[in-house]
Amino acid sequence: MQNKKIKAGIVGGTGYTGVELLRLLALHPHVELVAITSRSEAGLPVADMYPSLRGYVHLKFTDPADSALQDCDVVFFATPNGVAMQQTRALLDQGVRVIDLAADFRIKDLSVWEKWYGMTHACPDLVEQAVYGLPELNREQIKDARLLANPGCYPTAVQLGFLPLLEAGVIDRDYLIADSKSGVSGAGRKAETHTLFAEAGDNFKAYGVAGHRHLPEISQGLALMANTAKVGLTFVPHLTPLIRGIHATLYGRLTQDVDLQHLFEQRYANEAFVDVLPAGSHPETRSVRGSNQCRIAVHRPQGGDTVVVLSVIDNLVKGAAGQAVQNMNIMFGIDEQAGLNIVPLLP
Amino acid sequence: MQNKKIKAGIVGGTGYTGVELLRLLALHPHVELVAITSRSEAGLPVADMYPSLRGYVHLKFTDPADSALQDCDVVFFATPNGVAMQQTRALLDQGVRVIDLAADFRIKDLSVWEKWYGMTHACPDLVEQAVYGLPELNREQIKDARLLANPGCYPTAVQLGFLPLLEAGVIDRDYLIADSKSGVSGAGRKAETHTLFAEAGDNFKAYGVAGHRHLPEISQGLALMANTAKVGLTFVPHLTPLIRGIHATLYGRLTQDVDLQHLFEQRYANEAFVDVLPAGSHPETRSVRGSNQCRIAVHRPQGGDTVVVLSVIDNLVKGAAGQAVQNMNIMFGIDEQAGLNIVPLLP
Amino acid sequence: MQNKKIKAGIVGGTGYTGVELLRLLALHPHVELVAITSRSEAGLPVADMYPSLRGYVHLKFTDPADSALQDCDVVFFATPNGVAMQQTRALLDQGVRVIDLAADFRIKDLSVWEKWYGMTHACPDLVEQAVYGLPELNREQIKDARLLANPGCYPTAVQLGFLPLLEAGVIDRDYLIADSKSGVSGAGRKAETHTLFAEAGDNFKAYGVAGHRHLPEISQGLALMANTAKVGLTFVPHLTPLIRGIHATLYGRLTQDVDLQHLFEQRYANEAFVDVLPAGSHPETRSVRGSNQCRIAVHRPQGGDTVVVLSVIDNLVKGAAGQAVQNMNIMFGIDEQAGLNIVPLLP
Amino acid sequence: MQNKKIKAGIVGGTGYTGVELLRLLALHPHVELVAITSRSEAGLPVADMYPSLRGYVHLKFTDPADSALQDCDVVFFATPNGVAMQQTRALLDQGVRVIDLAADFRIKDLSVWEKWYGMTHACPDLVEQAVYGLPELNREQIKDARLLANPGCYPTAVQLGFLPLLEAGVIDRDYLIADSKSGVSGAGRKAETHTLFAEAGDNFKAYGVAGHRHLPEISQGLALMANTAKVGLTFVPHLTPLIRGIHATLYGRLTQDVDLQHLFEQRYANEAFVDVLPAGSHPETRSVRGSNQCRIAVHRPQGGDTVVVLSVIDNLVKGAAGQAVQNMNIMFGIDEQAGLNIVPLLP
Repeated sequence: MQNKKIKAGIVGGTGYTGVELLRLLALHPHVELVAITSRSEAGLPVADMYPSLRGYVHLKFTDPADSALQDCDVVFFATPNGVAMQQTRALLDQGVRVIDLAADFRIKDLSVWEKWYGMTHACPDLVEQAVYGLPELNREQIKDARLLANPGCYPTAVQLGFLPLLEAGVIDRDYLIADSKSGVSGAGRKAETHTLFAEAGDNFKAYGVAGHRHLPEISQGLALMANTAKVGLTFVPHLTPLIRGIHATLYGRLTQDVDLQHLFEQRYANEAFVDVLPAGSHPETRSVRGSNQCRIAVHRPQGGDTVVVLSVIDNLVKGAAGQAVQNMNIMFGIDEQAGLNIVPLLP
Repeated sequence: MQNKKIKAGIVGGTGYTGVELLRLLALHPHVELVAITSRSEAGLPVADMYPSLRGYVHLKFTDPADSALQDCDVVFFATPNGVAMQQTRALLDQGVRVIDLAADFRIKDLSVWEKWYGMTHACPDLVEQAVYGLPELNREQIKDARLLANPGCYPTAVQLGFLPLLEAGVIDRDYLIADSKSGVSGAGRKAETHTLFAEAGDNFKAYGVAGHRHLPEISQGLALMANTAKVGLTFVPHLTPLIRGIHATLYGRLTQDVDLQHLFEQRYANEAFVDVLPAGSHPETRSVRGSNQCRIAVHRPQGGDTVVVLSVIDNLVKGAAGQAVQNMNIMFGIDEQAGLNIVPLLP
Repeated sequence: MQNKKIKAGIVGGTGYTGVELLRLLALHPHVELVAITSRSEAGLPVADMYPSLRGYVHLKFTDPADSALQDCDVVFFATPNGVAMQQTRALLDQGVRVIDLAADFRIKDLSVWEKWYGMTHACPDLVEQAVYGLPELNREQIKDARLLANPGCYPTAVQLGFLPLLEAGVIDRDYLIADSKSGVSGAGRKAETHTLFAEAGDNFKAYGVAGHRHLPEISQGLALMANTAKVGLTFVPHLTPLIRGIHATLYGRLTQDVDLQHLFEQRYANEAFVDVLPAGSHPETRSVRGSNQCRIAVHRPQGGDTVVVLSVIDNLVKGAAGQAVQNMNIMFGIDEQAGLNIVPLLP
Repeated sequence: MQNKKIKAGIVGGTGYTGVELLRLLALHPHVELVAITSRSEAGLPVADMYPSLRGYVHLKFTDPADSALQDCDVVFFATPNGVAMQQTRALLDQGVRVIDLAADFRIKDLSVWEKWYGMTHACPDLVEQAVYGLPELNREQIKDARLLANPGCYPTAVQLGFLPLLEAGVIDRDYLIADSKSGVSGAGRKAETHTLFAEAGDNFKAYGVAGHRHLPEISQGLALMANTAKVGLTFVPHLTPLIRGIHATLYGRLTQDVDLQHLFEQRYANEAFVDVLPAGSHPETRSVRGSNQCRIAVHRPQGGDTVVVLSVIDNLVKGAAGQAVQNMNIMFGIDEQAGLNIVPLLP
């Protein structure tokens, strides 16, 4: 495999997850970028839209209809929700593997998905077949995946933080709290009022407290870890004047005494992209800026029975494009870290 | 009272709470600013350090030794912890009322105070006599206060958010969570590495998870509201790339069914500086920028038994200087809103 | 006049200049706010869109068709370019004075206006009649204005900086450079990609170097000051990751020796809203945040023949709504500073 | 050379240029990092201070006295001004090549240096011998350099922008203006008040208008390009609420007609790290974030005789550590781009 390059295509390359895929794949030693589609920007050199890519990406955007996506080994969907489900079957039928960075294939319970996303699903059978791409949870299934559902940004940070606790069964799974803070790039590159600099800058707010689309995705994952049908989760997302970064502050109630530091270090000992910090640490979002790392610290304030987990990722990397590349690496049997050997940008 | 102006002095006017007091008092209709002290800056016109005050504040900083603080009606201490307790008795003895914006008189249990602040208290008897200045909790006592302990910024946002719930006894007081986010001005104007623009900008982190000085202050207040000796509180502060603003996200477990919106509206119906937003709202920190307002929304996600309260203040106003002015107004029997009639600066 | 309140209406109150007018007029001692129009938001309480106004503004947006603007004493247009010119004549005919915060009446040469704004002007005769509202330049004409063209934000900062030099005739008027930096609120509250937080944050760029609409407005004003037909101006605007604030750095070549500091102090000695800083100063944008001040410093580096002027304003106040209120005060013969007695918000 | 790794040491690795060198050298294919010194942090693992380096840098800070810097092939000084000049001779004598990222060896005229830096120079003979490391200007001399003076951040952006114009002799060299804006990391990681988040955030100001240390460095370089003894330069630096990035806006007066776009493209045709953008472009600082690129656009507004050049770099990369690595590559005869193959981080 490593001798022949993986031919990769991207559908919807104009948003932030698209440009981030381009940043990573442009330097990936085993990938050849062959097509990037955008209906609205067809014909435009990608580097004209994103000057940061000048000298690295020489492709033009092509119309989806004209692009030879079927000749790719893998196609990434960096599209709005509901697009990938329309095009995936044709690609799979031609032997192309598909990685969807949107939510089309993340939730197994179709009625839940349809309620939260407000659409009828176009291919329920593919949902069943899709593999949820959180490598630290189910690397084995990812190896054989033909259709991969790449996790959301909040779900990645929250699930990795709760994983050791729920697998070990040491916290009350009925009262989980995920107080999560996201940088503004998490809302994408759409022109919207609430994400303008003069609205989101020097400002902090919660949103979607009544319900956010990532809630069912997180709950599904946590239940799986806890080996139960259902967990009780309160998830409160916040918009933060950061460009990149998610900080999840997680609260659980301990049901038994346990060496928390050891539990986390043990669980992630062999994970290249999860870094358990020394006891007493407070991870900063900038310590993972631009990289595929998740850094985690675990606390037990005043020795009480509340455990506090701090989990940070770059929402566009481990929370999107980087994790997609990591999944691709696993699916194609190459070094899981290929193309992801990046020192975070600090300051 | 309104015919004769209140003569006010400020000790330690070079920090952010000091300049904020100056901003408010300069336009206060019933106050005459007579002295601002700073040992290091004695002789310097205040407006040379803070050009924003040009044309409004004509005083120079004076050496504490030379300033006629004893001729004031009220002296504000905008000093580091441990300063006010050295100078308060002499002022009180001369009939000057004292408002301390630092922590010297906030905590009634001296052993707790000495543990968290790492000093021996200089005047335990005055601690007993001091009134904790959260007007929404104990306005009556404030009216007669000669020595007022102005609350901390986090404690103000957190206590106002939990107050209706704890007074009404509708949540489990043993499992309270206060996930709090503060702007960087909360750390003051000291030159420190971690609050540099290139460190705190585009970055988010928790700190002091193991224990923060505001924890005992908040716990003391919550216990009082709950009419109990002790509450169980997990308090996690976070440093946010905002200049001003605190957003407290509070979690409690409901022990009985209750109309939360009605409870909050009722409790704060007569409070000029607490604004309960309509059901479903998400207050933004900028909606109180520069003003003495606290805005609060209360949620019960998915109708479960977890209540989520969102509470925002400007840490330098309702969380410091504004509340100090509000307390002064109450202490001197003038209109509680005098000098605080400010429309927040948005955007 | 001061006994009866001025009835004021605002057309297009949903943008930043609109909400800023509301912030100022809500506390103006001589104004009664009677109508705010917005076609798209008719029926919505203003404070629902801008929670910062809760408790201060109790009006709802009304449809322009339904609102009794003709009963106002003054109507402010805080609308996109091209709207005021459609509605102004009818209001003037009914005796309503009009203050346009957009560009419809700023440029006397119609062919220039039509070229830069890409429209045919609807009422050339009113352009002639309109008074350009830079009080420091033509206060006398403003007193009698029925139709006032409120200056743009860049033009205010640049003109006030060059004014003393050009009036005194001490610089070469053929080689003027205005390197100007603006906060993002200057672009308004429209949803656009380039002003998103994730685009404009942690980023700096020039724009419009080939030509910007404020160029002819500034040139017209500078020529007037220099008492000449035409000046040679290079104007380069930059987008800066600030919410509010303009910093103009101006360069001119001295044609004669002159005491620059004295020249500036003399010229602005009686101006309440222009503050000439001591020699050697560097004004900060935050030193005028939220206020109607313009602060200026003048330098002559290394004693050479290049003069450097630093001029800062808050683009939404002295650069828009504040100057509009100042003009209204002058037009109605009341205290020029009424409603503008604001200490800048720092930090 | 490429078979044996270059042994590199860093003196003063705790500041921003130090950590940036570590970020770049940790992944450099031909470098082995052998020592990082810091007197104050001796014994501390580097990654404890900079968690972004966890997994990439395994060294501890060592005391300068104990570290085997003399065994290095090259030593980088990322120290305050005045340190390198004390230690360089001993290293050179042992055959170690030295790259100084501070200002000790940048200025040839010692009296000028001593005036601006306020010190007596410790080794005037080495100043003479030092090579100024702007590869686009003097690559040939760099190849043989044993002591390299790495340019300052402003000087890099300004010199690269003026270079084609001055070499071609098409502008008046007596009237050059460099209006320059820098991110706050340019001020280093020292704890200082004016670079605090709450001071520098949401704020913009000029500084050092009367004179800045980079002025003589830039003037020296521009004179060299113009092949003259002295140029007339007005240099105004500004502090901008960016973490990284410099944007230089340069103004010159054309003395002859010339195809500016062609001139720039021609001059930089073979330069890997200078990217001339298409005519009409406006480079953004983020388009070079984290990379060694300088991007330049050239304009002639309204076809007049003023030329405007826009030049952006990342002050910590092309303005410091990246250029130092580029110089090292040239000095050791390896691929000039080795270790600098980085796609800028956008957004």
